[in-house]
Amino acid sequence: MGNYFGKLFKVITFGESHGVALGCVIDGCPSKVKITPSIIQEFLNKRKPGQSQFTTSRDENDTCEILSGVENGITLGTPIAILIKNKNQKPADYDDINNVFRPSHADYTTFVKYGVTAKSGGGRSSARETVGRVAAAAVAKSFVKQNFANIEIISFVDRIYNIQAQVDTNKVTEQEVEESLIRCPDKQAEVLMKEKILAAKAEGDTLGGVVCCVIRNVPTGLGEPVFDKLEANFAKAMLSLPASKSFEIGSGLAGTYLTGSEHNDEFYLDAEKNIHTKTNHSGGIQGGISNGMPIVFKVGFKPVSTIFKKQNTITKQMEEINFTPQTGRHDSCVLPRAVPLVEAMAWLVLAEHILRRQKNHL
Amino acid sequence: MGNYFGKLFKVITFGESHGVALGCVIDGCPSKVKITPSIIQEFLNKRKPGQSQFTTSRDENDTCEILSGVENGITLGTPIAILIKNKNQKPADYDDINNVFRPSHADYTTFVKYGVTAKSGGGRSSARETVGRVAAAAVAKSFVKQNFANIEIISFVDRIYNIQAQVDTNKVTEQEVEESLIRCPDKQAEVLMKEKILAAKAEGDTLGGVVCCVIRNVPTGLGEPVFDKLEANFAKAMLSLPASKSFEIGSGLAGTYLTGSEHNDEFYLDAEKNIHTKTNHSGGIQGGISNGMPIVFKVGFKPVSTIFKKQNTITKQMEEINFTPQTGRHDSCVLPRAVPLVEAMAWLVLAEHILRRQKNHL
Amino acid sequence: MGNYFGKLFKVITFGESHGVALGCVIDGCPSKVKITPSIIQEFLNKRKPGQSQFTTSRDENDTCEILSGVENGITLGTPIAILIKNKNQKPADYDDINNVFRPSHADYTTFVKYGVTAKSGGGRSSARETVGRVAAAAVAKSFVKQNFANIEIISFVDRIYNIQAQVDTNKVTEQEVEESLIRCPDKQAEVLMKEKILAAKAEGDTLGGVVCCVIRNVPTGLGEPVFDKLEANFAKAMLSLPASKSFEIGSGLAGTYLTGSEHNDEFYLDAEKNIHTKTNHSGGIQGGISNGMPIVFKVGFKPVSTIFKKQNTITKQMEEINFTPQTGRHDSCVLPRAVPLVEAMAWLVLAEHILRRQKNHL
Amino acid sequence: MGNYFGKLFKVITFGESHGVALGCVIDGCPSKVKITPSIIQEFLNKRKPGQSQFTTSRDENDTCEILSGVENGITLGTPIAILIKNKNQKPADYDDINNVFRPSHADYTTFVKYGVTAKSGGGRSSARETVGRVAAAAVAKSFVKQNFANIEIISFVDRIYNIQAQVDTNKVTEQEVEESLIRCPDKQAEVLMKEKILAAKAEGDTLGGVVCCVIRNVPTGLGEPVFDKLEANFAKAMLSLPASKSFEIGSGLAGTYLTGSEHNDEFYLDAEKNIHTKTNHSGGIQGGISNGMPIVFKVGFKPVSTIFKKQNTITKQMEEINFTPQTGRHDSCVLPRAVPLVEAMAWLVLAEHILRRQKNHL
Repeated sequence: MGNYFGKLFKVITFGESHGVALGCVIDGCPSKVKITPSIIQEFLNKRKPGQSQFTTSRDENDTCEILSGVENGITLGTPIAILIKNKNQKPADYDDINNVFRPSHADYTTFVKYGVTAKSGGGRSSARETVGRVAAAAVAKSFVKQNFANIEIISFVDRIYNIQAQVDTNKVTEQEVEESLIRCPDKQAEVLMKEKILAAKAEGDTLGGVVCCVIRNVPTGLGEPVFDKLEANFAKAMLSLPASKSFEIGSGLAGTYLTGSEHNDEFYLDAEKNIHTKTNHSGGIQGGISNGMPIVFKVGFKPVSTIFKKQNTITKQMEEINFTPQTGRHDSCVLPRAVPLVEAMAWLVLAEHILRRQKNHL
Repeated sequence: MGNYFGKLFKVITFGESHGVALGCVIDGCPSKVKITPSIIQEFLNKRKPGQSQFTTSRDENDTCEILSGVENGITLGTPIAILIKNKNQKPADYDDINNVFRPSHADYTTFVKYGVTAKSGGGRSSARETVGRVAAAAVAKSFVKQNFANIEIISFVDRIYNIQAQVDTNKVTEQEVEESLIRCPDKQAEVLMKEKILAAKAEGDTLGGVVCCVIRNVPTGLGEPVFDKLEANFAKAMLSLPASKSFEIGSGLAGTYLTGSEHNDEFYLDAEKNIHTKTNHSGGIQGGISNGMPIVFKVGFKPVSTIFKKQNTITKQMEEINFTPQTGRHDSCVLPRAVPLVEAMAWLVLAEHILRRQKNHL
Repeated sequence: MGNYFGKLFKVITFGESHGVALGCVIDGCPSKVKITPSIIQEFLNKRKPGQSQFTTSRDENDTCEILSGVENGITLGTPIAILIKNKNQKPADYDDINNVFRPSHADYTTFVKYGVTAKSGGGRSSARETVGRVAAAAVAKSFVKQNFANIEIISFVDRIYNIQAQVDTNKVTEQEVEESLIRCPDKQAEVLMKEKILAAKAEGDTLGGVVCCVIRNVPTGLGEPVFDKLEANFAKAMLSLPASKSFEIGSGLAGTYLTGSEHNDEFYLDAEKNIHTKTNHSGGIQGGISNGMPIVFKVGFKPVSTIFKKQNTITKQMEEINFTPQTGRHDSCVLPRAVPLVEAMAWLVLAEHILRRQKNHL
Repeated sequence: MGNYFGKLFKVITFGESHGVALGCVIDGCPSKVKITPSIIQEFLNKRKPGQSQFTTSRDENDTCEILSGVENGITLGTPIAILIKNKNQKPADYDDINNVFRPSHADYTTFVKYGVTAKSGGGRSSARETVGRVAAAAVAKSFVKQNFANIEIISFVDRIYNIQAQVDTNKVTEQEVEESLIRCPDKQAEVLMKEKILAAKAEGDTLGGVVCCVIRNVPTGLGEPVFDKLEANFAKAMLSLPASKSFEIGSGLAGTYLTGSEHNDEFYLDAEKNIHTKTNHSGGIQGGISNGMPIVFKVGFKPVSTIFKKQNTITKQMEEINFTPQTGRHDSCVLPRAVPLVEAMAWLVLAEHILRRQKNHL
């Protein structure tokens, strides 16, 4: 049941990492939203690896086909099916891992749950699965932007291992992020992060860190009071990403070290009598509903599980072995590539709640 | 739409904090689950405030009525409606706050979203709303325990402000937690935490912190590979609690400071050839699916927004004022009372995924 | 899972026929809809039996309590819980039937499905369950009417046994229907129907028939092209009513005896250049979407299963017996009382699709 | 929202009649179900038109590609995406109809709802859309048959225009149905039906009728007491088919002419002490739940709207015109081709409820 996301802007993704194709179907996108393959392609290009020495050399040069739901560059109000064919299937690369439960991968749990696993590479648990989400997010973004032209989502690498960037979330631009090979807009931190990544890579090891996401020019009234609090749905969205370990909204964990009088966001009126808060510890969401201030959250990602070092593990025949993967193309640090995934999920959450918001009151 | 939780074990809660009654309806609980009012009452009692000087003096001495779905102490397979009447409605207590948007409360966002708000006290955004969840969780717990008798969920206060407890999640018992007035099983930390709470209370201020939750004797195979990863649903559940700010699974944020070779959980076989991991940085979940190791997660809560200090804010007439609440009964630190709420949501997530698990393969 | 109806205007009902209470919770009703107990009571009064010799003498003089979601006569946008207490529990009346599977009742199937049944009377399969739907429908109606003031739903008895009424669906009024004790606005047919009912009653037997429902002043654009065709959702709604056996939209079965050239509804423009169809065999719905013409459908109901004649059946101990119910208060003909149920379900379907319709295109 | 069907065995279909491709994605099919392209192809072949002079000459010689969810002939428990490319796109055939609202088609309602329509041919309202359902149904059938090997669904043409077949639903075989070019197993009626169809075709006119469906060897306990009564979900499924006008369960409309004493199905025990009913007016469903007797229902289909006769209608520019379609390939009688569609939807309903049934009681 867990392959769809959203209730009104409902996205289902499909496809195994080494299967014929991956993709998504979107049900609930209104008609007359402008969609072209290039809009989706731009999103897919941001996601694809192999862009530098800091990410995997695996070539996921994906191109998309829109199978339905769009004609003459606009949506019809019908389901939008998008297909991304796997061009680069190399199951042979993974032959050595087919029979072992790789530590901290999904091999073991998938096997015990389903009694069968997809051929090499992780199936639906592979990061490859996210290509369908990213395609859907391109549609979500177009829909959202046609409703709220000024809304923008900017994600960036906030920390890798112990190197913390200093970034002003009110000012950071997408361009600053994309100019960085590792998507960290703090140039000083970037240098240190790159060194860390290359050092880890040299040792066959991997690093984790944190992605920060800011959403600016948000309309008020997104989210609902109880189970579908906006931050609850962001949390679910982010923890559904491979390798994610934590979610913090607004002041997050740091906020739990403040007192109430330090943490409360006092309201004030600007010259045009618009309401704002002096601080934004709430991260743009109060009582589960957006208050018009920037939404800010952070997502932690663990160091990638695929390392090129000897580890103890178990085979499918339940025998203990030593295991060192010899092949496979993987990231030493997933953070740069996690940035567009965080953005993608954020667009999906926004699209859902913008659709819901239209029906709040008469 | 956001007032129900779960797809198979579906819970809807209703009720405003100062309305006639609150409660829940559960659709999807199988028949023949043992339920008595006392099972639910025990859960409600854990939740109720007014238990010590460390929590609000508000008397929420709730009693439940089972309206449907249960006869002769067992469920019928029909919807279970549970009612908790509001005995202690004192809207007058809140008269001074009816016209202001209290800082960091849901007053403003609720008003802009719905154009109307419930009478004093926060309506559905009040912590009072959680009484319905707790009642539902009692049913969920009974269902889960009848399927997996040894499963146990233990939550405790892990940190208040900057006082960090040291607790062994493999050994901590519910009794140790409940023996502590503030639900911190580390007796040394408990002393310091109490001092901090009383000091904050004396100043009309509030404190935040972290609740840790461990689930032991978990069956393998709970959770699904993509959007309904088990940790994603825990994250959503926890971020739907009032005042929650963060969620961490397993090693959490600390894990993002490790390398992959440090972080990976190697598999091994015990004497009975059962599979385990040497470490548990994964927090009992790999690829979104439980692996049989203890599930461990942490939830951060901000300092409560209701402080008894002067603050700047805005009225519903959009005028700036100074505001100091004179009355109302509130917690100086929500952490002790958050413990049973975290547990309640965890039971709901487990019940959902245990129902789903029954259909994994032929 | 099957106790809720709708996706956006989501209604869950609860309560066993002889339990403490029945009711509903509505999630998704926008704020600022006018609701008073009297609006709901009016609907409940239409539903209640005991109104004449033509219906059961059981006293279901239901009164409702609004527990949540409404303040000062308007909805808050939060869940609306409505409670109807069972005043008239007489399980003793049904003692003789507790141990047998009554022919054509739900006793047997409920028992094999759940392994347990509610105490006497049918539990959730009793017509009593519909009281929650009717209460929810009153809210749905208020919501719909505030959006489309002229919309009206009129249901009436179209046939009882073999007595067919002649009614012009374009002209029939609610008043004409309600003036008839058996809700048949054709006064000639009404006389014959009453005779048939009394004759059946005298023999301890029961009669079936057909309810017709017309919805006038319908906005265009309700319904969706594939699985949620408007008629599909009406069909589901109506077949979910106790004792219903058939559903026909527009020309219905009679239309299957026409040729395409006879059946097609030609379009024309009126003086104001508004589009209409010359005939309305489509019943106001084309391709699953309302076209602005009156929606007309018919629902068949079987003769009630509770008869006061000797029948062969089986006990819970799987022994064959002869069985004649001695007590219990039941309708000889359910049709008059089915009229408000058909209306109630129709309002729920309309509310759902009016909410959905708001998001069709940008 | 209306493009998916089912909650546990969830199917979403996509594709416009003249777009690149159509298909479906299934979420919720358990792992280890045997699926090969030939299983799906067999179902597609039953559906395809152009099989005789009695159906459209349009060549829909569809072949399917399984894109995901299946490896080595078994399902993985992941989403199953199936693609059917449109080989035979001839939008030119429909040029003359692009600008008119064809009477009793979905052209007008789609246009007013979405403000845009798919290029010629009906888009999602075309019968072409059903190809995705049929592909999904092949998977559903495999799943169901692996759980209940003896279950069988047989649909057949019960009536065309005024020619009523006489068929014993307890005995009719799939072979008897498939041996008939028009899928009517009553050979005498078949002759008359063929004559009627050819006569209508000669006049450019069309005919409607009724499909009957019987499901034998049904397990008890499918369906739920209130909104998801098994017959309610069958009704929704069938009324979601293009051109369907009516649904009857068991005795259906004929049953409404019986008295309760005639209609009630008395229970008895067979030699092995298994429970049965003497008659089956209930159509195998009581209180919304299957009782183990054959499920029997009938679906009425109107005469196809595409006729080759002059009709009055309106253009998109809101001008009245005379309109006679010159081209396009259409059925004179949709009934023979409706048979596999009824079957397909029935398999989807069964798969859904078999999955749900596994969780009835502990």
